[in-house]
Amino acid sequence: MTTPPTLGIGLVGYAFMGKAHSNAFKKIPYLLNQPPAIPLLLGIAGRDPAKVQEAAGRYGYQHAYTDWREMLADERIQLFDNGAANNAHAKPCIAAAQAGKHLLCEKPLARSAAEAQTMLEAAQKAGVKHMTAFNYRFVPAIRQAYQLIQSGKLGKIYHFRATYLQESSVSYNQRPFTWRADKEQAGSGAIGDLGTHIIDLARFLVGNVTTVSALTRTFIPQRPNPQTGLAVKVTVDDAFAALIEFENGAMGTLEATRSAAGNLNNQSIEINAENGSLRFNLERLNELEVYWCDSEPRETRGWSQISVTERYHPWMENWWPHGHIIGWEHTFVHEIAHLLDCIVNDKNVAPLGATFEDGYQANLIADAIQTSAETRHQVDVPA
Amino acid sequence: MTTPPTLGIGLVGYAFMGKAHSNAFKKIPYLLNQPPAIPLLLGIAGRDPAKVQEAAGRYGYQHAYTDWREMLADERIQLFDNGAANNAHAKPCIAAAQAGKHLLCEKPLARSAAEAQTMLEAAQKAGVKHMTAFNYRFVPAIRQAYQLIQSGKLGKIYHFRATYLQESSVSYNQRPFTWRADKEQAGSGAIGDLGTHIIDLARFLVGNVTTVSALTRTFIPQRPNPQTGLAVKVTVDDAFAALIEFENGAMGTLEATRSAAGNLNNQSIEINAENGSLRFNLERLNELEVYWCDSEPRETRGWSQISVTERYHPWMENWWPHGHIIGWEHTFVHEIAHLLDCIVNDKNVAPLGATFEDGYQANLIADAIQTSAETRHQVDVPA
Amino acid sequence: MTTPPTLGIGLVGYAFMGKAHSNAFKKIPYLLNQPPAIPLLLGIAGRDPAKVQEAAGRYGYQHAYTDWREMLADERIQLFDNGAANNAHAKPCIAAAQAGKHLLCEKPLARSAAEAQTMLEAAQKAGVKHMTAFNYRFVPAIRQAYQLIQSGKLGKIYHFRATYLQESSVSYNQRPFTWRADKEQAGSGAIGDLGTHIIDLARFLVGNVTTVSALTRTFIPQRPNPQTGLAVKVTVDDAFAALIEFENGAMGTLEATRSAAGNLNNQSIEINAENGSLRFNLERLNELEVYWCDSEPRETRGWSQISVTERYHPWMENWWPHGHIIGWEHTFVHEIAHLLDCIVNDKNVAPLGATFEDGYQANLIADAIQTSAETRHQVDVPA
Amino acid sequence: MTTPPTLGIGLVGYAFMGKAHSNAFKKIPYLLNQPPAIPLLLGIAGRDPAKVQEAAGRYGYQHAYTDWREMLADERIQLFDNGAANNAHAKPCIAAAQAGKHLLCEKPLARSAAEAQTMLEAAQKAGVKHMTAFNYRFVPAIRQAYQLIQSGKLGKIYHFRATYLQESSVSYNQRPFTWRADKEQAGSGAIGDLGTHIIDLARFLVGNVTTVSALTRTFIPQRPNPQTGLAVKVTVDDAFAALIEFENGAMGTLEATRSAAGNLNNQSIEINAENGSLRFNLERLNELEVYWCDSEPRETRGWSQISVTERYHPWMENWWPHGHIIGWEHTFVHEIAHLLDCIVNDKNVAPLGATFEDGYQANLIADAIQTSAETRHQVDVPA
Repeated sequence: MTTPPTLGIGLVGYAFMGKAHSNAFKKIPYLLNQPPAIPLLLGIAGRDPAKVQEAAGRYGYQHAYTDWREMLADERIQLFDNGAANNAHAKPCIAAAQAGKHLLCEKPLARSAAEAQTMLEAAQKAGVKHMTAFNYRFVPAIRQAYQLIQSGKLGKIYHFRATYLQESSVSYNQRPFTWRADKEQAGSGAIGDLGTHIIDLARFLVGNVTTVSALTRTFIPQRPNPQTGLAVKVTVDDAFAALIEFENGAMGTLEATRSAAGNLNNQSIEINAENGSLRFNLERLNELEVYWCDSEPRETRGWSQISVTERYHPWMENWWPHGHIIGWEHTFVHEIAHLLDCIVNDKNVAPLGATFEDGYQANLIADAIQTSAETRHQVDVPA
Repeated sequence: MTTPPTLGIGLVGYAFMGKAHSNAFKKIPYLLNQPPAIPLLLGIAGRDPAKVQEAAGRYGYQHAYTDWREMLADERIQLFDNGAANNAHAKPCIAAAQAGKHLLCEKPLARSAAEAQTMLEAAQKAGVKHMTAFNYRFVPAIRQAYQLIQSGKLGKIYHFRATYLQESSVSYNQRPFTWRADKEQAGSGAIGDLGTHIIDLARFLVGNVTTVSALTRTFIPQRPNPQTGLAVKVTVDDAFAALIEFENGAMGTLEATRSAAGNLNNQSIEINAENGSLRFNLERLNELEVYWCDSEPRETRGWSQISVTERYHPWMENWWPHGHIIGWEHTFVHEIAHLLDCIVNDKNVAPLGATFEDGYQANLIADAIQTSAETRHQVDVPA
Repeated sequence: MTTPPTLGIGLVGYAFMGKAHSNAFKKIPYLLNQPPAIPLLLGIAGRDPAKVQEAAGRYGYQHAYTDWREMLADERIQLFDNGAANNAHAKPCIAAAQAGKHLLCEKPLARSAAEAQTMLEAAQKAGVKHMTAFNYRFVPAIRQAYQLIQSGKLGKIYHFRATYLQESSVSYNQRPFTWRADKEQAGSGAIGDLGTHIIDLARFLVGNVTTVSALTRTFIPQRPNPQTGLAVKVTVDDAFAALIEFENGAMGTLEATRSAAGNLNNQSIEINAENGSLRFNLERLNELEVYWCDSEPRETRGWSQISVTERYHPWMENWWPHGHIIGWEHTFVHEIAHLLDCIVNDKNVAPLGATFEDGYQANLIADAIQTSAETRHQVDVPA
Repeated sequence: MTTPPTLGIGLVGYAFMGKAHSNAFKKIPYLLNQPPAIPLLLGIAGRDPAKVQEAAGRYGYQHAYTDWREMLADERIQLFDNGAANNAHAKPCIAAAQAGKHLLCEKPLARSAAEAQTMLEAAQKAGVKHMTAFNYRFVPAIRQAYQLIQSGKLGKIYHFRATYLQESSVSYNQRPFTWRADKEQAGSGAIGDLGTHIIDLARFLVGNVTTVSALTRTFIPQRPNPQTGLAVKVTVDDAFAALIEFENGAMGTLEATRSAAGNLNNQSIEINAENGSLRFNLERLNELEVYWCDSEPRETRGWSQISVTERYHPWMENWWPHGHIIGWEHTFVHEIAHLLDCIVNDKNVAPLGATFEDGYQANLIADAIQTSAETRHQVDVPA
């Protein structure tokens, strides 16, 4: 391989997303056949001093910060990666943009479209690369589906159908009250956390959404404070379902919930088109099902269960022999490698990756879902 | 077995539904351990003289009629079974009710709730037994699901999710223009034909529906006349999707389409509740998936893939040893046996079977789907 | 339809197989588009006078007999159908052949190859049609697989793999001692009961078997007498596994057991060939999986999950619209319709159906399995 | 986490296994909650100077060697990891043992049991830790299965059934002649490469094997030399199937092949026992299916489809939230972490990991398979 350039990284967050992103930064140099860049892990920031120190040691970040502002002062940092909670997305990203740093921000980009817009504008004004971390665009099977759709072989799309079912909130005690149950901090519940993933896949795979009709539910209106045990009012949704219309005439359904017992991480995508259909499930992310209306011989026509693990499938030449599956964490390797490539080679993050524009659009639809549920009317998504 | 009474049958329709119902009438006497009644196949009616004659010979009906009015004159006929097209449901059923005959009518009960109401009133006034042929209530796995819900073991229901996907209308030439594409004759398209099945299952399994928000689509606006080849305007929907709210607080999604390539008869039902979840697919109708939140040991907790073929599963003691699956046609045997039992033993058709009241309620929701799609508003279902 | 000829039927056995065969006789006239013949249910024989009388009434047989010899005296009977226990196959079939009656006999044809040979010779000498009831040849998916293999499209076969797993004998009390556990009456255990089905499918789909190496097991050496509760020695196998070689160079594995918990009727067939592969499972008998090495585009190459329910699939034009599945019982309709067609139109039962020759060959292999297990040597199957 | 000790590593091989092992060494320090040791990547050895240099740079090994003897001279190396071809297992491992280094060797341990024995004796004499890299013991679902069996909850085991199906050799040109097709270099074909994995799982999950009966096949007797294109004689098997008996009375079947079209990496394991059954498939390695004979309520008894991704499943607390699947590569992380733990804390590699003793036992069975296939007799496995 040709020697790739280095790129200085500063990360906010050491928990779930901090771990997933750090793992990607560390694997890119030695596992990709042609790493676009070698990440230099310069700084990691987080509120708890002991925890951020432990994370820095564990992942090999040079400095640990309890204030992201200090970290931004390190001029060697070229990419600012924000894996913090939803209410800590906008301010740090805007400051980082103003400091001329490229941006990666976890989803949902913001708590509302208005907030997202300020982030988008800052990024655009700064002229930096920006990505919203919709990592499921980087599942090989999803990219393969995208390529099939883009090739035109499937023809006109009629139906899009997506559900994202989890079970974390089925019972009162199972999920104590956290920031995720507080509208002020989280913006929304299942809508922002799970829903924006499938909203983004709808836009990525099918196109612009023009209208939304929706229902929301908070099945359990209070949750126990994990310290005091006292009941606290939940101000976000446990679940939503929405009907959507696409600019290209297709219709769609979206549903996300944290109250679906037995569904650990069940994100399911279906597309029905003129010449065939697609099906995908995140818990079997190495698989894709495709039906072609005209496959021959007709006696054996059916849903092809594809192991998306061949060298000719997206990204898979970097990994293992066919049938040797990859896991959820690999989506971040692909995502971040794409961003690094865009940064060091000045390529466009879109359409293969999601930009802050895509993050903003997802927030627009998330807002429309809430508005429709409140007003009982279909809502137009602003163009 | 004790000798069961006989019951005189008169059937309208010799095509798809005529075949399915006739098969049930013929199998009940020799395959059920305790047949509730022995159907006497007295008359069959249909418009095409040659075809109705052929059907009478094939199935063993004593008389063939080209006018159902004549058939109704046979006083030995106790059960009038209407398997005709949607626009030939009301008038014959009402006349039969007035003649004091018990009623079985294919779904959708009528082209509209208003029309259904006239049928319901006639049946009630006549004091006869009446059933709408929502045969999927009589799938053993569905009945088993119903029993689990009724037992309370699943707890409060949060989510109901149903799709009924077929592919008959994917392309222009695949489905020529028939009465099914004409609103005047059919009332609606996928809504009435496929949608009312899952509407009824929503009501059967979860309960009353209070609101509806919906989208509809006619993807291919014209279809070729099968004789002339000329394009004819389609006046019904190819597909719909709806959000529903239940009286008990659950939320639901419904979708039916004839434009989902690769889906031959894909009716899928999911329920998520407080203590567990259920999944069912009609193309594997002998199977049910159940998840219990508290199953032990927790290391092996998962979705139980149940072969609903044990002697202790609904109806299965009548059939074959476990694992020896039954087919789609068997649902009609169970359904009609239930109706015969209700007639000869004066039992209630509901709640296990669907009455004309249930057929009317399904039409009300079907109407609400169309209204919501037109008005872009959420619609209240009349109580 | 043209009016088919009638054919007089005499059946031995009123239990499981009597029910399955009677159902087929009754359905053929009204459900097949072109019934080859109309069975006349003339006689049914069985040892228990009350039960055979009940069965005659239930299925509509004109006469009930407690001695099959008397039934054979009815000259109108043209087809003698033997659904009795294994030790009551040979004598009645040979007598029926001598009386000039066509023969249908349940599997295993006999308790040993030597016994089967006497039946085969009697049938051949009498010049009657003869069929061994290997009904799984008449599963549409299996027939479809056969056609794909015969067409040459799959190329040279490398592997055949079949298991037939049931759970009836997992525990001591679950399966009391019956004739099936007694070598004198049954000939063998899982080998004859389950094993001969997959032995026959090996021969039907791949070809002649030349060698056998095998293991057998009787996991629970005694069973309780259902009347007395006393333990009785089991003299047959609970399970066997075998390696086989085919004349055409393919290798195969066979396994059947009654001790596989959770497997209700799990018959699984796999074939790997030069240009593709096949998979089938009896509990999902409407489905077939096919892999083609050269399917295009390669990005969507995978196992095609086929719903074998299209009008162009074997027999399916007689039944219901696609995706409306058939059940286990339908295999008997196809099987017996084939035999009726062969009888009234003087066609060959083989190769599509199994003859007594095929039954004899299956017994030869069943014997070889037992010999190999005893001697610990590979055994040549007599040519 | 407490600061773990470091451990010096020297690796032979930079290809497939070199990549998998290096990845594990690199992930252990930052992804495991409590890494047992921090591997120091001191040396990597391989024949091609450019390739070994590239690998050293890529993975961060301090030195690249073209002769493993030189690498062994580095006294800081404590663990010698052999990922070379089968004919380069014995000599380096024995030399490393003599140099007092702990040993990890890829499977099959050797080309024959005799060769394996020399390795085992060297390791035992040196008193070092030794592991054969049967990584599938370290799939969470397999470890979970092992724990269920060990707990006694499944009861007496009746059946073990394993297949390992790949498709690399289906056609003549697909797999050119390499060292893997040469008995002198590889020892055997599918037997050693795929078969020893399932042999080891048989021993790990069920216990000692006492007898073997087997068939082998070389479907395509020649392969093209990749340089010259000339046909070269294949001297190893493409496939084998075997019947095995276990010391504890269970019976088993084993089959491995490189000629099963459509099977990319299809390793399938089934166990049927007194109280339940297990099923596993490597292409869905995050899943395990378990059936309990006595699960209640009986109406929902079935195969539990378990997502082995909960924090309480083996190793999973180190990874991601439930339903966020891991991949094939993670088995090496678990395996090598176990070995490191055994080395630095002086624990026993067995029974959870496979030692050279286990590697030798697998070679004994592999030899018995070949002997049985040649002699057509059942072969006793030496105790």
